[in-house]
Amino acid sequence: MSYAPNTPIDLIAVDLSRPAADQAQPLHNRWHPDIPPVATVATGVPFRAEAIDWTGGQIANNDDASDVRDIDLRRCHHLSGPIRVEEDGVPAAPGDLLVVDICDIGPLRGHEWGYTGIFDAANGGGFLCDDFPEAGKAIWDFDGKFTSSRHIPGVRFAGMTHPGLIGTAPSAELLAEWNRREGDLVATGEERLTLPKHLATRPLACLPEPAGALLGAIKADHPDHDRIAAEAARTIPGREHGGNCDIKNLCVGSRVYLPVFVEGAHLSFGDLHFSQGDGEVTFCGAIEMSGYAVFKASLIRGGVQKYLTPTCASKPLSVYPLFEVSPIEPRYTEWLVFEGQSVDASGAQHYLDASISYKMCVRNAIAYLSKFGYTAAQVYLLLSCCPCEGRISGIVDVPNCCTTLAVPTRIFDQDIRPCRDGPPVGPRLITRGECARPR
Amino acid sequence: MSYAPNTPIDLIAVDLSRPAADQAQPLHNRWHPDIPPVATVATGVPFRAEAIDWTGGQIANNDDASDVRDIDLRRCHHLSGPIRVEEDGVPAAPGDLLVVDICDIGPLRGHEWGYTGIFDAANGGGFLCDDFPEAGKAIWDFDGKFTSSRHIPGVRFAGMTHPGLIGTAPSAELLAEWNRREGDLVATGEERLTLPKHLATRPLACLPEPAGALLGAIKADHPDHDRIAAEAARTIPGREHGGNCDIKNLCVGSRVYLPVFVEGAHLSFGDLHFSQGDGEVTFCGAIEMSGYAVFKASLIRGGVQKYLTPTCASKPLSVYPLFEVSPIEPRYTEWLVFEGQSVDASGAQHYLDASISYKMCVRNAIAYLSKFGYTAAQVYLLLSCCPCEGRISGIVDVPNCCTTLAVPTRIFDQDIRPCRDGPPVGPRLITRGECARPR
Amino acid sequence: MSYAPNTPIDLIAVDLSRPAADQAQPLHNRWHPDIPPVATVATGVPFRAEAIDWTGGQIANNDDASDVRDIDLRRCHHLSGPIRVEEDGVPAAPGDLLVVDICDIGPLRGHEWGYTGIFDAANGGGFLCDDFPEAGKAIWDFDGKFTSSRHIPGVRFAGMTHPGLIGTAPSAELLAEWNRREGDLVATGEERLTLPKHLATRPLACLPEPAGALLGAIKADHPDHDRIAAEAARTIPGREHGGNCDIKNLCVGSRVYLPVFVEGAHLSFGDLHFSQGDGEVTFCGAIEMSGYAVFKASLIRGGVQKYLTPTCASKPLSVYPLFEVSPIEPRYTEWLVFEGQSVDASGAQHYLDASISYKMCVRNAIAYLSKFGYTAAQVYLLLSCCPCEGRISGIVDVPNCCTTLAVPTRIFDQDIRPCRDGPPVGPRLITRGECARPR
Amino acid sequence: MSYAPNTPIDLIAVDLSRPAADQAQPLHNRWHPDIPPVATVATGVPFRAEAIDWTGGQIANNDDASDVRDIDLRRCHHLSGPIRVEEDGVPAAPGDLLVVDICDIGPLRGHEWGYTGIFDAANGGGFLCDDFPEAGKAIWDFDGKFTSSRHIPGVRFAGMTHPGLIGTAPSAELLAEWNRREGDLVATGEERLTLPKHLATRPLACLPEPAGALLGAIKADHPDHDRIAAEAARTIPGREHGGNCDIKNLCVGSRVYLPVFVEGAHLSFGDLHFSQGDGEVTFCGAIEMSGYAVFKASLIRGGVQKYLTPTCASKPLSVYPLFEVSPIEPRYTEWLVFEGQSVDASGAQHYLDASISYKMCVRNAIAYLSKFGYTAAQVYLLLSCCPCEGRISGIVDVPNCCTTLAVPTRIFDQDIRPCRDGPPVGPRLITRGECARPR
Repeated sequence: MSYAPNTPIDLIAVDLSRPAADQAQPLHNRWHPDIPPVATVATGVPFRAEAIDWTGGQIANNDDASDVRDIDLRRCHHLSGPIRVEEDGVPAAPGDLLVVDICDIGPLRGHEWGYTGIFDAANGGGFLCDDFPEAGKAIWDFDGKFTSSRHIPGVRFAGMTHPGLIGTAPSAELLAEWNRREGDLVATGEERLTLPKHLATRPLACLPEPAGALLGAIKADHPDHDRIAAEAARTIPGREHGGNCDIKNLCVGSRVYLPVFVEGAHLSFGDLHFSQGDGEVTFCGAIEMSGYAVFKASLIRGGVQKYLTPTCASKPLSVYPLFEVSPIEPRYTEWLVFEGQSVDASGAQHYLDASISYKMCVRNAIAYLSKFGYTAAQVYLLLSCCPCEGRISGIVDVPNCCTTLAVPTRIFDQDIRPCRDGPPVGPRLITRGECARPR
Repeated sequence: MSYAPNTPIDLIAVDLSRPAADQAQPLHNRWHPDIPPVATVATGVPFRAEAIDWTGGQIANNDDASDVRDIDLRRCHHLSGPIRVEEDGVPAAPGDLLVVDICDIGPLRGHEWGYTGIFDAANGGGFLCDDFPEAGKAIWDFDGKFTSSRHIPGVRFAGMTHPGLIGTAPSAELLAEWNRREGDLVATGEERLTLPKHLATRPLACLPEPAGALLGAIKADHPDHDRIAAEAARTIPGREHGGNCDIKNLCVGSRVYLPVFVEGAHLSFGDLHFSQGDGEVTFCGAIEMSGYAVFKASLIRGGVQKYLTPTCASKPLSVYPLFEVSPIEPRYTEWLVFEGQSVDASGAQHYLDASISYKMCVRNAIAYLSKFGYTAAQVYLLLSCCPCEGRISGIVDVPNCCTTLAVPTRIFDQDIRPCRDGPPVGPRLITRGECARPR
Repeated sequence: MSYAPNTPIDLIAVDLSRPAADQAQPLHNRWHPDIPPVATVATGVPFRAEAIDWTGGQIANNDDASDVRDIDLRRCHHLSGPIRVEEDGVPAAPGDLLVVDICDIGPLRGHEWGYTGIFDAANGGGFLCDDFPEAGKAIWDFDGKFTSSRHIPGVRFAGMTHPGLIGTAPSAELLAEWNRREGDLVATGEERLTLPKHLATRPLACLPEPAGALLGAIKADHPDHDRIAAEAARTIPGREHGGNCDIKNLCVGSRVYLPVFVEGAHLSFGDLHFSQGDGEVTFCGAIEMSGYAVFKASLIRGGVQKYLTPTCASKPLSVYPLFEVSPIEPRYTEWLVFEGQSVDASGAQHYLDASISYKMCVRNAIAYLSKFGYTAAQVYLLLSCCPCEGRISGIVDVPNCCTTLAVPTRIFDQDIRPCRDGPPVGPRLITRGECARPR
Repeated sequence: MSYAPNTPIDLIAVDLSRPAADQAQPLHNRWHPDIPPVATVATGVPFRAEAIDWTGGQIANNDDASDVRDIDLRRCHHLSGPIRVEEDGVPAAPGDLLVVDICDIGPLRGHEWGYTGIFDAANGGGFLCDDFPEAGKAIWDFDGKFTSSRHIPGVRFAGMTHPGLIGTAPSAELLAEWNRREGDLVATGEERLTLPKHLATRPLACLPEPAGALLGAIKADHPDHDRIAAEAARTIPGREHGGNCDIKNLCVGSRVYLPVFVEGAHLSFGDLHFSQGDGEVTFCGAIEMSGYAVFKASLIRGGVQKYLTPTCASKPLSVYPLFEVSPIEPRYTEWLVFEGQSVDASGAQHYLDASISYKMCVRNAIAYLSKFGYTAAQVYLLLSCCPCEGRISGIVDVPNCCTTLAVPTRIFDQDIRPCRDGPPVGPRLITRGECARPR
């Protein structure tokens, strides 16, 4: 006898020539348990599923960042799925751990490019919105596993390709908890909680928003459509089910353990990243792309109780994913590392604030690297998408939290380490052009 | 002719049989430009300098954590130095970058052990003070480059040995700025700034404190002693000059670039760590030891202006160190990674708060690993000192900041990855004992 | 304006449903300067080229190794190319260095499998022919970047996917030198040279062989066909132009510098490997597959003279390639390492013989790993194709050359390190089945 | 109660101010079961043991290589030990596996330097004796974990510090077998075996040699001295017991499993290397030093039968060590890799000869790197001692064996990769001086 090859089954396809809202297998951009699966898969079977970039095609391969400036965030993220998972014909059950092997991810043939954007302040901005209030964009071309950009010349690196977003569907109970706590934040957050106001140029949270909602097979004329659209959670943050965690290390070759909250697990994914830096600091900050993924699922029955513990004792569903990293992450030996402390740009001292510390750390890195022929915006884009590592190095030394940002020196075509002569000046300085601005 | 060997010159020695306050080359535990150098070194010459553990010998190699509970923090950290640095007879000048190669670090012969402590809530507590209000301790024995503990059996790992604290002296101007901003925090912080109140069981900052001050050669009878003691900054946080940054990657083989603020640079160091995890979460959280270091210094004249940019435009001294990592960091392939989001233990939603997210992340890791025969306190101590990586993975997805904590699986004598059968139970479960508690 | 995506141009396609000898773009299995290019490519342009497995489809995805036993080696390797390389319209010239970036390699869609074979003694056998005279086979299924085999259960690893064979065309002069020296070996080798006779179950070299020759566009009716077929070198060994070097580290992400000997460089490649161990010891020993590659070429004009030196002073063409390794090689921390010395299986002492030493080293590894439930043939196949490292550790300590073989422990689903209890026995021993044998 | 620190016990000390032959704990430079132990150690106890450099102090820290030229090899290697190993008072027994953790290795205080030598042809020469017939020397200074040389400026790297030689004592039976087979080689090797005559400028093997023999506590007046001296094996090659395997990866942090052949195991070691390249090609090729080691032993009772298999079926003692590598090996991302094939410097073709192939590979690397301002002898010395990797990449592609030599690019202070402009010439070329030559 002869065997069939181990070709992944084709589970979900997208057609980039059609609108994101009009795909044969409908996409969704909200989380809700009532969004029906678009496909079913058995454990142990590799499957291929495609996804449109997170904006659903709003960004073009050009030199004009006005599309980033004018993006409609209510339509994001465009997700493929949900996928119902079964083992021996029995669906995944709440309380199981869904194990997903991330076997492969890549761009769609004919679409070997991606983008990194700086969000305009009017659209919420990014992590350093105060410094970079204006929209910007860099287009990245892919050479196999590597990428380079006409907007940030002189750098080239291998992708740590990953799904920025992968998660199971929430149960009605978990969804209600999300809406409760995020609603609380919006309603009373500025007074009740510890808000780093300097960051708050953006909405505190994105509550359910019927406008722009895509609910998969639940179309506008479906009797439940309006109810679901009003209840369904936005996809912006990561949560207990995984979701938009934006972890660069969740890349090809890793294995993630996701809690199951609904029968069948209802796995969805999207927001494919060719590469990302820790923090994804420009917000639209990874190298965003349309692409395909190959996954393989298995189940640990009852795994939530076996392995996980609620972070909030009174909320049994407050359990979070874990994962194993890949042996094929790109590795670097030489890193240049920048430091930040909890003193903000006005010189004010904060208390063990890792967010402010990391902000200052990223600013230090940008200022340094800008001495090598780049504009600050180019470096900001680069640190958002290259494989840099952002670490919480010390978080107990009152009042400062020390964070560090490590940049692999190999990705540059010049030596960026300090030397006696200082950075290149005069004839030695090669100006590295500009990233895209709105026209 | 024959050459002399490249033996590091003996610059600073300590005598562990004498009190920390009574060393031949006096130690200091405050930052002040007027603390005179105890030694001078030329660039390019490797030198050996010893340091007492950060507490100055307050912690014993026993099974009783009462010493950790009763520690006198006003006497910490005990630093060796300042060391005056000269090149060709010309001292380092403000505005230079002092380049320090960290050539070697190890325990003192006859003292091949260290400790990790959980601080008692009464003493400020650690990062997870709410969960671990009581003092605890683990003693670590060193086998060459590796360590293991009778208090946390079943783990063994190589050290990333580093100075938790290394820095130059502040100028009077920089010192004044530290005192201003930290004084502001203490005076008005709770109202003025964004304080994560859940963390605030500790003082907001440690302001100058004459009690317990060690000022090197400036003894109590020195006419300037009281002035300096009243002005000198505490050593708890890292700041512009480096200081107590507690960065595990600043380990043997790395090269750090420190801004110089006073003539001669006045390099001090201490708080030697055999190993530390990112965050150093129990506060006394690295594997703390007495030991020696071998350093080699060089200078980039005018390097601050050449390479650095103030983080606060109006404060030209607000510049921070950077460093290159070592090619001899221990490397691991297999990591198990835990996630945290900005939802606290009560279920309340915070806004892009990396500190809370990392707190939840560490709690998730502790809960998980406790299923493998350990108490939660043992795991808390372990994650504070083993080479785990704490990352800011996504910091723009409102309202959640996703942090991750990666634990190298190889350090355990059992397979800690999830499997179908669940963690060991019944006869398969080996109880891993207890860490030290106060007697 | 909008930009076209950076899609690799489609340069060479193969059709696996047609015979290897009957492809639209004809293949070749001999080296000769007169084989005309099938395509032309400009430097800087990524291009995609497909290749049939090295045997041209002689091996099937089944459980019967008779196809490996009966393979017709005269038809191997089936190469895609030659590709003519031009820069700004000017072809590569002899003396240039052709720089090839290996951007990507993968299986053809619908053919996600490969094979590793043990050659039968009658067909020349492999490195350990004395121990394994009979043909064997393992089929490997690919899950994205990972592979596993029904014939060697309990192992899974990431591929270091690479072209076993990549090279430029020889000039007439270089070809003549190959034929001279290899002819000499066959004619007089047993007497004249130092032949390890224990290895000599195979032909000493494969001289030009018209039978089975594929010469690309030079078909049987071409007036030059017979001449070329009589002169053309076989593709079995690597030589100055690269060729069948079978270097596992020449994988995706690496950059190779190939000497150019003919106008246009005439780059050919094939023998795609999903993975290979150092030595490729079973001969058909990598995980052989059909697949695609994405390359990008550039030129260093006059690079041979700039950088290379003939190994034989009187032969200016005796220059060899060099390459830079990839940052995305899979990395492992834990390796179990076996040793070999220059004492053969009969106990006879040889003189600094690295080949014999490595043979004994591989035998030691096979014997050891066979204690974990595998047959010796399974381990032999595994060590031929998994990412193990074969090193010449010491080659000066007369009379022994010490070689080592390092096996990454992570690829097994069990702990293969020695322990006090010994390897699994009785109920703990899981028998790992059998590899395929001829039916 | 308080605990004693885990200080390694002081087992063996050397005094570099006294002759190697006149140490308080006598050294030995031959292998024989009747050499009595100088110390006993229990399993589980870390112990410190010192060793004199392999020549016993024949090489000086100067710029004159005449000491390398005139070395007396009959007195080498100077070994510390034998150490008798017991567990719970019961000595190790033949058939056990002795497990040795290599906890630490470093230079002796006041002797932080080492040397690499090229052997003169008259003294046997090195691997490339044809190219480098004259003695040479480079002195290396240690800066903590790093080293640099006044004789090869512009390189600096971290050591992979290891015992070039570590092994158990042979039994009388095993010793007899060594003498038999090596005697056979000397007596009849040139005719009987496959001798690469081009390598045979050195003796085929070093048979027992009473002149210069050091037998530990068996002094010249001991009644058994002359018998033992006549029987005892030389220490040049590695053999079944480990011995002079010269494996650079057997470095600090690794764990080696050595077969036990005599009661008590009788562990000896020496030939400490600060660093070594694969192959140790200049013969005296590592960075040789005097120093200390910290080891910890344990036993796998009956481990030989449990895990090992004789390489020669009729010789049950033909079993070899294995080891686990260290997680703290220095790691590099960027490597430049050179290739060799089995065609020698005269252009003659050999048959799957890994030794010749590696010779050509090393020559290619030397020729290439010499273009960057170094003399060939400097590069030869460098490749012998820097952490370069020598691999048997393909050993089945008749008639060529493809070997590769990978050089980490980071160890140089200049970029050594090929570029369009070629290597530095004219004013850009910095001449790197000379290594030491005999005066």
